[in-house]
Amino acid sequence: MSVSMKAKVRVFLKAGVLDVQGKAVEQALHGLGFAGVSEVRVGRLIDFDVAGTDPAKAKAEVEAMCHRLLANPVIESFEVEIV
Amino acid sequence: MSVSMKAKVRVFLKAGVLDVQGKAVEQALHGLGFAGVSEVRVGRLIDFDVAGTDPAKAKAEVEAMCHRLLANPVIESFEVEIV
Repeated sequence: MSVSMKAKVRVFLKAGVLDVQGKAVEQALHGLGFAGVSEVRVGRLIDFDVAGTDPAKAKAEVEAMCHRLLANPVIESFEVEIV
Repeated sequence: MSVSMKAKVRVFLKAGVLDVQGKAVEQALHGLGFAGVSEVRVGRLIDFDVAGTDPAKAKAEVEAMCHRLLANPVIESFEVEIV
């Protein structure tokens, strides 16, 4: 039996980087009558199973995945959660 | 002073709907040597401020936003969190 943990990665544009998609969503929500909405930020979620039993080792491996593929470290920040 | 709450929306493809982007990420991670990764699902995160002080009312309003703009209820499911 293989043992695995769930990894949850959240990727967002860094504060200060213009979030064009967020602005578009905000304007569309205002257009639909949801006037109380502000500061919209749109990000990506990547959930997956990762083999192993050591959460600390898995977290380090997933952070390496973020640096190499899942996020653009120039303009994006990420959070990794292992559950 | 205006009072607002933070809304966090997670949108994922429903189980059973082929997640092409997830498959592409999975193959790319395998190609980089991360062999222990499986069941990759890619979703969207939409975080924003919503005016008001009643969390239950805010949650209902954000769920309405999901149905009308933020998610495609035919193939996507969503979760709303108010903090």
